[in-house]
Amino acid sequence: MPEARVAVFGAAGYTGALAARLLSRHPYFDLTAVTARSEVGRALDELYPHHRVPMVLEELDIDRHADVDAAIVAYPHGAAAEVVAQLNNRGVRVVDLSADFRLRDVEVYEQWYRQHEAPSLIDSAVYGLPELGYREQIASAEIVANPGCYPTAALLALQPLARHGLIDDVVIDAKSGVSGAGRAATDKTHFVSVDENVNAYGVTGHRHTPEIEQELAALGSELRISFMPHLLPLDQGELVSCYVTIPDHAELDGESLHELYATAYYEEPFIELVDIAPGVRDVRETNICRISTHFDRRTRRAIVFGAIDNLWKGSSSAAIQNLNLMFGRPEGEGIS
Amino acid sequence: MPEARVAVFGAAGYTGALAARLLSRHPYFDLTAVTARSEVGRALDELYPHHRVPMVLEELDIDRHADVDAAIVAYPHGAAAEVVAQLNNRGVRVVDLSADFRLRDVEVYEQWYRQHEAPSLIDSAVYGLPELGYREQIASAEIVANPGCYPTAALLALQPLARHGLIDDVVIDAKSGVSGAGRAATDKTHFVSVDENVNAYGVTGHRHTPEIEQELAALGSELRISFMPHLLPLDQGELVSCYVTIPDHAELDGESLHELYATAYYEEPFIELVDIAPGVRDVRETNICRISTHFDRRTRRAIVFGAIDNLWKGSSSAAIQNLNLMFGRPEGEGIS
Amino acid sequence: MPEARVAVFGAAGYTGALAARLLSRHPYFDLTAVTARSEVGRALDELYPHHRVPMVLEELDIDRHADVDAAIVAYPHGAAAEVVAQLNNRGVRVVDLSADFRLRDVEVYEQWYRQHEAPSLIDSAVYGLPELGYREQIASAEIVANPGCYPTAALLALQPLARHGLIDDVVIDAKSGVSGAGRAATDKTHFVSVDENVNAYGVTGHRHTPEIEQELAALGSELRISFMPHLLPLDQGELVSCYVTIPDHAELDGESLHELYATAYYEEPFIELVDIAPGVRDVRETNICRISTHFDRRTRRAIVFGAIDNLWKGSSSAAIQNLNLMFGRPEGEGIS
Amino acid sequence: MPEARVAVFGAAGYTGALAARLLSRHPYFDLTAVTARSEVGRALDELYPHHRVPMVLEELDIDRHADVDAAIVAYPHGAAAEVVAQLNNRGVRVVDLSADFRLRDVEVYEQWYRQHEAPSLIDSAVYGLPELGYREQIASAEIVANPGCYPTAALLALQPLARHGLIDDVVIDAKSGVSGAGRAATDKTHFVSVDENVNAYGVTGHRHTPEIEQELAALGSELRISFMPHLLPLDQGELVSCYVTIPDHAELDGESLHELYATAYYEEPFIELVDIAPGVRDVRETNICRISTHFDRRTRRAIVFGAIDNLWKGSSSAAIQNLNLMFGRPEGEGIS
Repeated sequence: MPEARVAVFGAAGYTGALAARLLSRHPYFDLTAVTARSEVGRALDELYPHHRVPMVLEELDIDRHADVDAAIVAYPHGAAAEVVAQLNNRGVRVVDLSADFRLRDVEVYEQWYRQHEAPSLIDSAVYGLPELGYREQIASAEIVANPGCYPTAALLALQPLARHGLIDDVVIDAKSGVSGAGRAATDKTHFVSVDENVNAYGVTGHRHTPEIEQELAALGSELRISFMPHLLPLDQGELVSCYVTIPDHAELDGESLHELYATAYYEEPFIELVDIAPGVRDVRETNICRISTHFDRRTRRAIVFGAIDNLWKGSSSAAIQNLNLMFGRPEGEGIS
Repeated sequence: MPEARVAVFGAAGYTGALAARLLSRHPYFDLTAVTARSEVGRALDELYPHHRVPMVLEELDIDRHADVDAAIVAYPHGAAAEVVAQLNNRGVRVVDLSADFRLRDVEVYEQWYRQHEAPSLIDSAVYGLPELGYREQIASAEIVANPGCYPTAALLALQPLARHGLIDDVVIDAKSGVSGAGRAATDKTHFVSVDENVNAYGVTGHRHTPEIEQELAALGSELRISFMPHLLPLDQGELVSCYVTIPDHAELDGESLHELYATAYYEEPFIELVDIAPGVRDVRETNICRISTHFDRRTRRAIVFGAIDNLWKGSSSAAIQNLNLMFGRPEGEGIS
Repeated sequence: MPEARVAVFGAAGYTGALAARLLSRHPYFDLTAVTARSEVGRALDELYPHHRVPMVLEELDIDRHADVDAAIVAYPHGAAAEVVAQLNNRGVRVVDLSADFRLRDVEVYEQWYRQHEAPSLIDSAVYGLPELGYREQIASAEIVANPGCYPTAALLALQPLARHGLIDDVVIDAKSGVSGAGRAATDKTHFVSVDENVNAYGVTGHRHTPEIEQELAALGSELRISFMPHLLPLDQGELVSCYVTIPDHAELDGESLHELYATAYYEEPFIELVDIAPGVRDVRETNICRISTHFDRRTRRAIVFGAIDNLWKGSSSAAIQNLNLMFGRPEGEGIS
Repeated sequence: MPEARVAVFGAAGYTGALAARLLSRHPYFDLTAVTARSEVGRALDELYPHHRVPMVLEELDIDRHADVDAAIVAYPHGAAAEVVAQLNNRGVRVVDLSADFRLRDVEVYEQWYRQHEAPSLIDSAVYGLPELGYREQIASAEIVANPGCYPTAALLALQPLARHGLIDDVVIDAKSGVSGAGRAATDKTHFVSVDENVNAYGVTGHRHTPEIEQELAALGSELRISFMPHLLPLDQGELVSCYVTIPDHAELDGESLHELYATAYYEEPFIELVDIAPGVRDVRETNICRISTHFDRRTRRAIVFGAIDNLWKGSSSAAIQNLNLMFGRPEGEGIS
């Protein structure tokens, strides 16, 4: 029987709507309301028939909608901070899907994004990637900053190397399906623009760069990364191809590299180590990150691939994983 | 009026068939025959209706089919050398689409491919990328080794940096449509395998690696590259994303980088420099390579994108470009 | 706790593998073995990583593998009958995904398919479409002939009209994703053949025609239909567009047509009536058939659309629905 | 050397831009200007890089832009009539891509579209489908109403039957790529909406219906048709599947049906009769309509498929074909 009440704020977009779907079938959480900033009054079933969530998008009424135990906030960057603050004021625990509380240094945030609307709360937020060592902190957090989709894949792909100081330099070439660009109908998301096409975007500096660097540093590897996202003609799925320059002195080969990852992720329920480079189709609609490691003896580079579903492990199912941890539930409840 | 007679050997596959199509409409060349090792007796119009070449695939009869001025050989690697040798014996000038004559060092060839069937001819072959400085040699060549699709894009994207000694290290992350995998129906080319998917392949070392390294060395940049191809859910198109580590002492910024390329490619009819990262759709069914350059001040990396159509500039229209040069025709005749 | 043991015979193909996946997570059924005629010894996880069924394909050993309460047979037409007979001999209840037991008239079968290998069993088989009035018969059946994917969509779309004698004539224009063509890698399933394409196939008479006619006749509407399938560039999903000529005397309009369907399907858990023409994406990876009805006053035609996932409701999840009925389980167990 | 000056009015959209591309390479016509109602000041090369038309979209200045011999007007329905009238006033011959002058009965137009802005000009317009018998009228026309994409495919597929009174009834099930929906970024053209999907649209009556009926009537077959378009996950291409009920007395079989079409289209350069049901890929980027005919003896239905590229033969290359006729040029000049 459901025991904790949860609302989704900003459920008109892809990630909020998927979070609502996952919550609506969750054995423990009770989805009480879905709010939106656009499409108010429309049924989720109309916007997302395949989700089969028979609820209507409501205009935000903070007093009424904050009468919950927890909230998932799926607002755009910049707009999220304020509503997170309001919820936090009322004692509601929050998983925030935006970038607003991911960067611990407000100056870095303001350099890559915009002025922060609730800087005093940054210290209360925990980076919501359990597999990165944040499980305990998440369990007791008031605010969980759900990671970006690219950082999720990149950090899971790089963590073991980073923890062992084995990254001198790294190029992260990332490929994403179109759902990562969100629900807005634009020239760039028009079918005819994407179909039979592939191109890089955010070339001059994608905002996920400082997020990845922050967490690599937290793992002991302070460095500047080259991160480059590309848009692919598919809907859901994200692949990061990581090319790691290892220190000259490091003794590494294919076997020890594989061993490093096997040891690191031995007990992780949502990480799958595979021998063959993974495809995003292997993890579609799952909370799983698939990783393969390869050592190129010619160049002495470690090459690591990480594949996730950008909407699931890259956002919404990861949010449920965090909620599960926050409420002492089995980590995979409702997302396995 | 057509004045030179040309046959295509191995026209059942994608690249041979496209070469046949381009020749069949060429104002100077007369397509005399199309041969094949499979599908003999079938009409090209049946296999490739959109090419509209009303010719029937014939079994190879070297005496009869070698009665031409030139030939395009579209055999698989390993099988090409022998037929190229036969044609060369009979004084037929050849553009070979296979890898058999691309590598000038037979040992390197045999390490990456297999035993070479005509090693004595390797020295007679010219690497068929006009924009790389081979124009004059191509004009008088007996055998032109048409470059691989990935090397074409990568070398055009890297040439200006390589010529100026500005490449200390490079990661080339390449993305290709499925036609690059050829016409064979396999698990990997099945629609359901490719659709909504993306993955790396040839992870342990793709054969285009030594070809790129050979030509970078010829440009003055001897180094070992990291080259990694990925398969995308689209039919034609190839993008290389090149991440170049420049020497510490080099003074480079976005402007001077752009200038370097503008100067290098000023007069190249088939290279387009653009400001925004190119999409493969921009060059679909053209002999054009689109290139954009970017300088990342944070990491001091030069980032260069190159987009081509793998079947056109990456193979068949490039072969016609070479034929044009060999017969003193305008370089873009029949492919503009 | 699982209480009935089930094996899947022929699990290397798309439908058998999906049936194995659904059974492997089913609360009541215990998947004991997966056999195959090809790919023996390979792990299902290797062929279908996204299914996550950690079992190895075994060569059929009827004595050992028949030690189950029920079996799903996913053999090709013609090959299924024999193994179904063997299982039936041993008292194993079977859901057969092939066409071998769908047609009640062996002559019709042999006219459209080939010689029948077990004609004496035809009378023991029940047509496995519960929503067509076969629920009770399925519950006690020894052999359930799982319907074809197109007949499933077409019959659900036409049933209410057929029962009321409102079909004088019907054109069924069907569109299917490529998974409907099966796992075999052929020219027709090659990505490059399907991508950016659409065409009709089986033009001279698709084998699902007599199956649809048989069941329409059983509903009271004996007629010859025009049925035409088309192949689309998508993986899973099937849409039937039914153009129904109604009898001259019939009094029908949009409202009464809608009412007819609402009444007929009021209690069906897996049929969704919608106002807007459904897309196949709405039912992807579900056991649901979405139907919309429209009355064209200009031509007095009833137009009905039916959308299913060809691998789910069109085959494998429908098989589980039948198994549930056969074992007295809730009809939607394991597939909702 | 170019001898007639032509401008394209409304070149920001798909069809206007493609018309501009075709004119820009046409040996006889000189493209003098491209105007637009949005995107004024932007380069066509920026909006449509693959077209490679180095011209800038200008705001309409009728006095200046009407200084041409002919114009292609690619305005939306309703908006076109006025600019066509202005051009006609100034003696400019026009090919109008909109529907404004296709319907000869203004009442029918106003019933399906909206109030007509230039009804007095309707009689001056010729229906621009040369293969339907309008060649001579087009040659001397002041205004050519370029047909709709669906009517083009449907009428070419049905003409021989219609001329012989062999259509008692017809269902036209049409499938189109997304470019047919135009350049506007909407929920319906978002990649994620279209990808892995297919659905009917315009269910209650698509505006191409009266256009097809008008021309069938002109061919001697007055009847009400069932026409239903569907949206497919591909960019360019359109297939019509026509199910024709023939008169009871008609004596028809597969051979005589084929003969009928062979005779009718013997000399048509842009119609290809094929035995196997055509795919839209076969006619991509061509002015060709591919047709196959089939006779179903079971139902005595004639089934005819017609495949075109909706942007080419369905609009822009057909406009050039008409311009060629209007100026006494070879019909296929610039589009073969």
